[in-house]
Amino acid sequence: MAANFAYQNIRDFEFIIQEWLPTEKIFNYPQFADYYSKDDIKSVLGPILKMAKEVVEPTNEDGDLNPVKLENGKVTLPPTFGPLFKQLQEEGWGTSNIDESEDAMVLPHILHSMVWEMLAAANPTFGPYIILTSGAAGLIQSFGDDHLKEMFLPKMMDGTWSGTMCLTEPTAGSDVGDILSRAYPTDDPRLFKIKGSKIFITGGDNDFTENIIHLYLARIEGSKPGTKGISLFVVPKYWVNEDGSLGELNDVETTAAEHKLGQHGSCTAALSFGENNTCRGWLLGVDPRENDGKGEGMAQMFQMMNGARMETGHAALSCIANAYYNARDYAKERIQGRPLTNPKGDRVTIINHEDIKRALLCGKAHVEAMRAMMYKTYFAFDVRAHDPNEEERAKANELIEVSTPLCKAYPSDEAWWLIGEAIQCYGGYGYCEEYPVAQIARDVKIYSIWEGTNYIQSMDLIGRKWLMKKGAAFGGFVQEMRDFFEANKGAEGFEKEFENLGRALDAYTQIQMAIGGYFGNKQYGMMPTFARRILTATSQLYCGRLILDQALLAAKKAQEVGPDHFDYEFYTGKVLAARYYLRNVVPNVWAVAEIVKDGDTSVLDIPIGAFEY
Amino acid sequence: MAANFAYQNIRDFEFIIQEWLPTEKIFNYPQFADYYSKDDIKSVLGPILKMAKEVVEPTNEDGDLNPVKLENGKVTLPPTFGPLFKQLQEEGWGTSNIDESEDAMVLPHILHSMVWEMLAAANPTFGPYIILTSGAAGLIQSFGDDHLKEMFLPKMMDGTWSGTMCLTEPTAGSDVGDILSRAYPTDDPRLFKIKGSKIFITGGDNDFTENIIHLYLARIEGSKPGTKGISLFVVPKYWVNEDGSLGELNDVETTAAEHKLGQHGSCTAALSFGENNTCRGWLLGVDPRENDGKGEGMAQMFQMMNGARMETGHAALSCIANAYYNARDYAKERIQGRPLTNPKGDRVTIINHEDIKRALLCGKAHVEAMRAMMYKTYFAFDVRAHDPNEEERAKANELIEVSTPLCKAYPSDEAWWLIGEAIQCYGGYGYCEEYPVAQIARDVKIYSIWEGTNYIQSMDLIGRKWLMKKGAAFGGFVQEMRDFFEANKGAEGFEKEFENLGRALDAYTQIQMAIGGYFGNKQYGMMPTFARRILTATSQLYCGRLILDQALLAAKKAQEVGPDHFDYEFYTGKVLAARYYLRNVVPNVWAVAEIVKDGDTSVLDIPIGAFEY
Repeated sequence: MAANFAYQNIRDFEFIIQEWLPTEKIFNYPQFADYYSKDDIKSVLGPILKMAKEVVEPTNEDGDLNPVKLENGKVTLPPTFGPLFKQLQEEGWGTSNIDESEDAMVLPHILHSMVWEMLAAANPTFGPYIILTSGAAGLIQSFGDDHLKEMFLPKMMDGTWSGTMCLTEPTAGSDVGDILSRAYPTDDPRLFKIKGSKIFITGGDNDFTENIIHLYLARIEGSKPGTKGISLFVVPKYWVNEDGSLGELNDVETTAAEHKLGQHGSCTAALSFGENNTCRGWLLGVDPRENDGKGEGMAQMFQMMNGARMETGHAALSCIANAYYNARDYAKERIQGRPLTNPKGDRVTIINHEDIKRALLCGKAHVEAMRAMMYKTYFAFDVRAHDPNEEERAKANELIEVSTPLCKAYPSDEAWWLIGEAIQCYGGYGYCEEYPVAQIARDVKIYSIWEGTNYIQSMDLIGRKWLMKKGAAFGGFVQEMRDFFEANKGAEGFEKEFENLGRALDAYTQIQMAIGGYFGNKQYGMMPTFARRILTATSQLYCGRLILDQALLAAKKAQEVGPDHFDYEFYTGKVLAARYYLRNVVPNVWAVAEIVKDGDTSVLDIPIGAFEY
Repeated sequence: MAANFAYQNIRDFEFIIQEWLPTEKIFNYPQFADYYSKDDIKSVLGPILKMAKEVVEPTNEDGDLNPVKLENGKVTLPPTFGPLFKQLQEEGWGTSNIDESEDAMVLPHILHSMVWEMLAAANPTFGPYIILTSGAAGLIQSFGDDHLKEMFLPKMMDGTWSGTMCLTEPTAGSDVGDILSRAYPTDDPRLFKIKGSKIFITGGDNDFTENIIHLYLARIEGSKPGTKGISLFVVPKYWVNEDGSLGELNDVETTAAEHKLGQHGSCTAALSFGENNTCRGWLLGVDPRENDGKGEGMAQMFQMMNGARMETGHAALSCIANAYYNARDYAKERIQGRPLTNPKGDRVTIINHEDIKRALLCGKAHVEAMRAMMYKTYFAFDVRAHDPNEEERAKANELIEVSTPLCKAYPSDEAWWLIGEAIQCYGGYGYCEEYPVAQIARDVKIYSIWEGTNYIQSMDLIGRKWLMKKGAAFGGFVQEMRDFFEANKGAEGFEKEFENLGRALDAYTQIQMAIGGYFGNKQYGMMPTFARRILTATSQLYCGRLILDQALLAAKKAQEVGPDHFDYEFYTGKVLAARYYLRNVVPNVWAVAEIVKDGDTSVLDIPIGAFEY
């Protein structure tokens, strides 16, 4: 038995959309007003919950037990993946997050992301086939001319073709500016000959679409070195004629399908382009030779990459949530021992044991805190895309820029140990592949590496996002938390929680000042030394602020409905999850502050030779 | 490629035995004096380092790629395991930790454990076949009569037979007192009919020994309920006649071989005993019917269990170390990007990047700190076994009792994220099974569950070890750390490190007082809620104390030998590892103290129903 899909209901999603965030604003945008209101999200999410269980969950086991194979240059995928791809694309679940699409099916980001949280939980391996196709199509939509759009988009969105993003090369991963792929001009100024090798291409090959459209980074000869000189190309596996019909194989070969810790159903391909000098691709955007040697490829790719970073963190969150739900289901059934508070009583289900309750509440608190952060950010995606007020859009963009590294790295960092705790709840069974959590651990580990390692995210946070608009964007982000603190710090029943939030805010200022001081002293190595811990602290502070906001609302609602109401335990649980998070997780913010201020330099001082021991 | 054995030298072992601990005391015991001195450990460990690489490492890949299979009741093991088992047993590596053996080959525990650290790193899956055989033989040695010893021991120790420990049952894991296995008297008072099912029996079956000797817990009818009424039996797979010859199958059947996250070469068997009512076993020790219904089984098994707990933690440590060494080797070769301190320079190997150095130093610091704790404890094993002075033996026993839960749980808890950091050093390659670290993560996860989950260890620490001898044993353990602090707190160059140690000691007192207070208030749920974090804090305090002691010595030696000496970097690295540990890890002790004192009760307050969301 592979990983179960153990989401039981959509109550937390309903709380986020219908009670917590002011989503009427979004549902009133002309894009959505005729189709949905915030009150009928159940009509969207209810069927998805059912589909995730009945249609997607079985493909997860198929993927884990029938890993991708490459034989004689041909890949074989888990047999259920093709039919699921077609079904989801035909039903429009892939298209529906492209803001500029004119399709009536378009969902707000915040709602669409809830759909994908459940689909990702049901089969984390499958999602990227669709998400990357949407991302690749989105790039053509944004940067292609009408002709290219006509040639590629309809078939990419109806499930006939798929798409990928091709960045990484054997010698250039995190430093994508050092790629060796080259593009050479042809007689047609739109077309270039492509030559290079790409690795770790997720969905890089499959056996269920007629074509695969690679969005490909390469350098046109004569362009600037580094990321500045890189351009983006549309490189189909099979050539696409001007009339949209398929031509010959475009000199693209699959040279390897990685054998991975998890994500066995995901085809992580090594691809060779132009081995026979017959690979061609369309340039997207300006030709660097007419632009001072500067290509637009990296900036263009970042449109896709930022979305992919959100989706990566979100997939990690869905794994954490699903592991927590699975552990809960097991703990409700497994009888073992007696809790310390009743050592002479009958044996009980282990969900009554303090340490199991601790592990489950720890899971629940992290899930709800991270979800608050993710959906607050997706809310901003909708505002940025559709709000008529330019200032609102700009503010939303700032929040997205600041939040993206947090949303990518924090869930994908914490997932490993949180899922480890879920394994621990199962005892020895957690180590057996017949139970669901081992696979979740194997599947989740990639997310801290994908789409920019979490170290890169932390450098993005501190090196870029702290400084954006001369610090005004990040300053506003912190000020908003301080305003929330000042406005609510007297809230009855949450005195200690607000005390902790206030202390974390002060500590965070100290972190920023300490890093500023190291820079002032030209101690440039200190920031990268502490960057990952600072990203974690930033996320914990922000998640603490958001889940506490949820708790204030939930406490009020709990009082309103009273203990006999069916929703009372949901609200109580929300309050206690926030309490746990503020009292057990947020204190790490000042622990990090103390360590950053201390400024231990052992990492910078150690000679490389000392690692021989 | 499965996990490499990446230990390069035995320098840290030499430091521990030849420079740090007063091991001349041990090597002067009559047991060892004629055979070894502390100066010739290289003659033992050098060949083991070579054997681990050349002989054992290849079996690791074999084990991972050829997992144990069960077909028609017969198991098939990785083909290289049998020959390795015979070789190691014939060479005496298994026997050599049985204190009472009269074999000349006996090594001190401290040295023998270094042998096993390397063998475990080279193939974590293989070790238990031998270690459990030694443990089972040790129980017969301790509690069997001469006849049983004669029948079983020679063949168990020369590689002809193997041994196991059979505790867990489908419905009784952590609460072993609830086992359902039964033993029924026969006409021969030494022999009982055995009936029951056991699961998760490591080495429970194999295809390379002629017999398997199960040390089996069961309840004789009429004995007391719970752990008090349990007895221990010697239950061979094939009956052993009084003359030592093999009889028929003893009604023992293998009903499953678990399919696990890792440890693929380890046969984790479900066994059925007495399905046809013809399974028999020898009782070890007193018959409960003649002892007020009380059996000795649990106490006897704990002799083996305590050793197994040490070995489990030590195996986790060997995995952490091997993952760190592998990541280091990769980081020395992989070229990627530029460090922030030289952004316009040439591309460099990633070991020059701050975040990679941080991850490696974090690994190194944990390895050396944990090793200090493990070998300090093994040192006490030798004193307890051989010291002529009874008081010394008693003191050593106290240290072992206090340290065992720390040695078991701390490395096996931290291993998961530390190996996660090693994966992160590899980037995407870390997620590929062709590189060594993914397998180490899969293999290591069991150790936090085996031999008493880490929650059980934490309850053992707080519920038993804190209170042992009315608190005097643990009080002495803490006082020794305080004495060390007082004696050395002025040490030049270590001011901040000692400040942190002192603060951690104070914080630890606060943890103990807070838990005492909760007990006084009858808040019995608080201790289990915080127990696991307290165990971690205890270990970090103790490891901090030990590695700081090592650092004082290393700093002195570094000064003596000077910067041009080949050992200078070893000593410098030791100092910086201690610095890193005291400044970046030990602060968690006061973070835990603050959380324990705060006393959040959300874990105890949350209604089970709230976990539905």
